Amino acid sequence: MSELTFLEAISAEKADIEKHLKFYLDSLHIPGVLHEAMSYSLSAGGKRLRPFLSIAVCNMLGKPKELIMPYACALEFVHTFSLIHDDLPALDNDDLRRGKPSCHKAFREDIAILAGDALNTDAFSLLFEFGEGNIKRAGRYFAKAVGGRGMTLGQIYDCTIPENERTAEKLDFINYYKTSELFIAATAGAAAWLDADEKEVKALEDFAAEAGIAFQISDDILDITSTTEKLGKPVGSDAELNKMTYPALMGLDGARRAVAERTEKAKAALSSAFKENEWMKILLQFADYVRDMAK
Amino acid sequence: MSELTFLEAISAEKADIEKHLKFYLDSLHIPGVLHEAMSYSLSAGGKRLRPFLSIAVCNMLGKPKELIMPYACALEFVHTFSLIHDDLPALDNDDLRRGKPSCHKAFREDIAILAGDALNTDAFSLLFEFGEGNIKRAGRYFAKAVGGRGMTLGQIYDCTIPENERTAEKLDFINYYKTSELFIAATAGAAAWLDADEKEVKALEDFAAEAGIAFQISDDILDITSTTEKLGKPVGSDAELNKMTYPALMGLDGARRAVAERTEKAKAALSSAFKENEWMKILLQFADYVRDMAK
Repeated sequence: MSELTFLEAISAEKADIEKHLKFYLDSLHIPGVLHEAMSYSLSAGGKRLRPFLSIAVCNMLGKPKELIMPYACALEFVHTFSLIHDDLPALDNDDLRRGKPSCHKAFREDIAILAGDALNTDAFSLLFEFGEGNIKRAGRYFAKAVGGRGMTLGQIYDCTIPENERTAEKLDFINYYKTSELFIAATAGAAAWLDADEKEVKALEDFAAEAGIAFQISDDILDITSTTEKLGKPVGSDAELNKMTYPALMGLDGARRAVAERTEKAKAALSSAFKENEWMKILLQFADYVRDMAK
Repeated sequence: MSELTFLEAISAEKADIEKHLKFYLDSLHIPGVLHEAMSYSLSAGGKRLRPFLSIAVCNMLGKPKELIMPYACALEFVHTFSLIHDDLPALDNDDLRRGKPSCHKAFREDIAILAGDALNTDAFSLLFEFGEGNIKRAGRYFAKAVGGRGMTLGQIYDCTIPENERTAEKLDFINYYKTSELFIAATAGAAAWLDADEKEVKALEDFAAEAGIAFQISDDILDITSTTEKLGKPVGSDAELNKMTYPALMGLDGARRAVAERTEKAKAALSSAFKENEWMKILLQFADYVRDMAK
């Protein structure tokens, strides 16, 4: 049997991740419209990249996949929470998410705020109720990546940074909080959950830090070069919101060069701690994918 | 030395709770306006009732107070998060909280949403970073009390229940989620954190369930009978928002009778599992305080 590529692997895991997301959400027995709103946003699609990264790390470490599933799905809970709150009128005011009405449009603003809150908290319910991993070691990565030292801080910077302070260095800094931290939780945190060696956990931190910033640069490029159909939201919405982006700061070519540099560093970090196996190569290919998605 | 009363005890603990809230928040090293907004709402006063209940349980069990402080302060983090989000324009639209501008008025709506989000998540950071308790057993109570099976569900009911479905039974149900669950986390969850016997944990669940609903009934009564100065927000704001309240459903006297019944049940539950000691008596007096606050 030939080895899986990254795209084959992420496509092969998607249905199982979505089955588990539904299983864990339903197991919490949340009633009525709150369940509907959480389920609506959780099942709105997307690549399921963060849970996939956790599964990939689990496979690379040779551990049974069921061990990582509560942790992997908790990552998708908090990612979904962040999308619901980012779309709110007081933040990005996006009516569309993945081609469908965003949560506050499909339901109501109050319900969307509370559905996001519940997904944030109940990510931890998954860890406490269903998890068998090293919760204290992994929980530190997880909570750090989500709260005021992670993506919520990144979002605050995004909302509040003055125009005259916009530099590529500052943008790296913001995107580290907005994206890299949750990638770190998805990889280093997953390894911590599975009781991996400290050296492996640290290498995954470096891998994910670089890959996260590269991912955000590619996302900025796609916002300019893609189509509304592919993006599931209007093209150029960053520019319309006067958001700081890499192409605006360094041009399209400069942004593409920055992605290439970041992804090389990510691959070097991974190679420094792990021997080549099928799933280690899939994680290397993920870095290539991030580089190539903006081409 | 004579024994402390409930009011003396909660007053004596307030400064220490507030010192620890500041210490834990500052230890997370959250920068800029996000820290300011979290700190603004965390330091806006209030009785610090939930952390106090945890400390009282810890003292009743004869355990060292320092063991419970991260857990106690995590409760105040999530309580503060819930107040920030409840005050938002899309929810209760309250401009005042404890006599000061609410978070979205003092800062901005986007910042208030994100500050609430960070307090929600970073409550768990306190448990993971600073806690030495039984995190898995207590974390289940904690996450259940806050997310889609707890106060967030109660808030959804509060926002969405149709006028023709308003009954006292339904209001009990809502207030169980809105208030009792976090009281349960503050007492039964604290006991779980401290590795108490299952029988003691269960008795505290019953105590807190009754005390929580009683507390909410008294709060509804106070919204009618108090003054703006005492409440720190306009009197009658529940009626103005057309909220379902106990006095509206059963009259003032009926509501007062309901509080008295609930607080007796709370005291009976506590007495069933714990021998009388100074701090057990303080918890009994807390139930009396809840009954008398609406007189």
